[in-house]
This record gives sequence, structure tokens and C-alpha cells, in this order.
Amino acid sequence: MKGAIVTGLAIYRTPIAPEWIDYNGHVRDAYYGLIASHAIDTLMDRLGLDAAYRQQSRCTLYTVETHIHYLREIGGRDSVQVMARILGADEKRLHVALELVAEGSTETAATCETMLLHVRQSPPPVRTERFPHAVAAAIVKLRDATAAMPPSGPGSRRMELPRR
Amino acid sequence: MKGAIVTGLAIYRTPIAPEWIDYNGHVRDAYYGLIASHAIDTLMDRLGLDAAYRQQSRCTLYTVETHIHYLREIGGRDSVQVMARILGADEKRLHVALELVAEGSTETAATCETMLLHVRQSPPPVRTERFPHAVAAAIVKLRDATAAMPPSGPGSRRMELPRR
Repeated sequence: MKGAIVTGLAIYRTPIAPEWIDYNGHVRDAYYGLIASHAIDTLMDRLGLDAAYRQQSRCTLYTVETHIHYLREIGGRDSVQVMARILGADEKRLHVALELVAEGSTETAATCETMLLHVRQSPPPVRTERFPHAVAAAIVKLRDATAAMPPSGPGSRRMELPRR
Repeated sequence: MKGAIVTGLAIYRTPIAPEWIDYNGHVRDAYYGLIASHAIDTLMDRLGLDAAYRQQSRCTLYTVETHIHYLREIGGRDSVQVMARILGADEKRLHVALELVAEGSTETAATCETMLLHVRQSPPPVRTERFPHAVAAAIVKLRDATAAMPPSGPGSRRMELPRR
């Protein structure tokens, strides 16, 4: 699937910080995850789960799981663009697919799937909470616009090597 | 599986940096990944894939994919211990499972599976390379010691929500 067209809603762009480069000479694996994490923040802003909402409602999103496929190195001079699709949602959960691409490239550098859960943090204990109506509507709208877009790389799966 | 005994080889320990705390009041998802990434570095040292080896051989490990399950929040005052198991390996690939646990806790904060590929970076182009004999032997030894240990949390899998 390498070389496929990168699809989704462009939600985030960042230059590469020098401290993200590791001994292999390109961005350390974990910082792909940091770029994805910040992209999720901007997606939350678009869906009405922004800082004002979080402060007023005491609700936020917790990340439940994340699966990243590393397809290409990202160098220190690159800027990275993140595209988002919503693959699924229910009353409390959001399944997002992200694609990271170096600007000027047509080839996906990484794909990332994340499952997020809407929770109320206070008063304790933390508990799951339904999305408010406006947020649920925004999620459905974006899901309907992006879910059927073809992915440009692999999705989550069970990792396994044959036993020798 | 929450509450199961954390198992594996203790390979890494780190305090939490203040900048890892996000607006939810605990460690941002991506920094669990950074802790895992540094833990993999220490595992590489143990297997003979250390800086001296990398410099001499021009070989290193590239991360192919990573799947993290977030089971518990990690706070700013925690120190995190990382346990490692080797789930599988072949001539060029290494499948590692990590468990992150806050020190003083018996409950896993996150599980992380990573697939790594041994490559030669120079001369270009980057290409896959078999592990040298001593490294392969060290991998098998650690795999045999840890692969059968019971996991304390979920492993990699396909993420999916039912379509509404």
C-alpha cells in the first residue's frame, strides 16, 4: 500500500524539533506518537472537546490504545502534516486513524490508529460519560465524511512472528 | 487481566519529567511510548546491539510497529519500571512485549508490543541484515526465558467498534 494517496482531513502540521532525532539520524519512534497525540488535540478542538469544554464539563478523552506502523523515516528538516479519519464511534468512544506525511512527499511516513474514551474526571472516581449531543453530531459528520476514504497504509492488527 | 502479576525482565526505570504531564493531569499518552522507546534502547544494550556495535557495524534496529494499551494513569510523582519479554524472533526481526508499572504498584499501567527490524544503514540504501551470531544467541536465550511468562495485560490486536 506504500505510495497510495494520503487521505483524510488535514488537522495538524508541525516542524521537527532537534531533540526528536535519535542515534539512527531520524525522528525517534516515540515522537511520531507525540505528533499524533498533538494532532488528536486539534481534532478534539474541532469536535467541541476543547479546553473550554474540558474545564466547564470536567470531561476529557482518555487514550485507550494506539497502534502505529512506521513506514518511512522522518528527517530533522522535514515538516510533518497529519491527516485524520474517523473510523468509528459510539456513545463514549472514538476510533481515529491518522496518517503522517512529510511535507512535499506523497508517501505516508506512518499510520496511527487510536481508540479514545470520553470520561468525567471529577468529582472522583473517573467514570465514562456519553458525548454531549453537539459533539456526537460533529463526530458523526466527520465520520461520514472520512470513514470510507481509502487508507494509505496498514491498520491495527495482531503482531506475530512464526515460531521457529 | 488488570491486577495480574507484572512479569518479565526488569530493564529500565525512569522518573517522570514535569513536561510529560498533560492537561488531564497525568502523563500524556505519547510519553508512555517514549519510556518504552528508551527501554528498548536498554534491551538493545543487553543483546549486544549497543552504541559500539551500531558504530562498528553500521547496523541498528528500526521500529516497524508499536501497539500500546493504556490501563492506568501515571502521575507526576511516579517512577516507572519497565519489564520486557521477547515474544518472538527470526533472523532479522524481534518481537518485544513491555509492561510499564509505577513503582510501588502491583498493577500494570500500560502494555506495549513492538516489532523491530535489524537493518544496515550504510552504505546506502538502508537494507535488512541478519543478526550476528552472538546477538541471535542472546535473543534466543532471553526469548526462552521470558516468552512463556504470562502477560499482565492485553496484547496487540485489530481495533474495531461496531458500526451503528
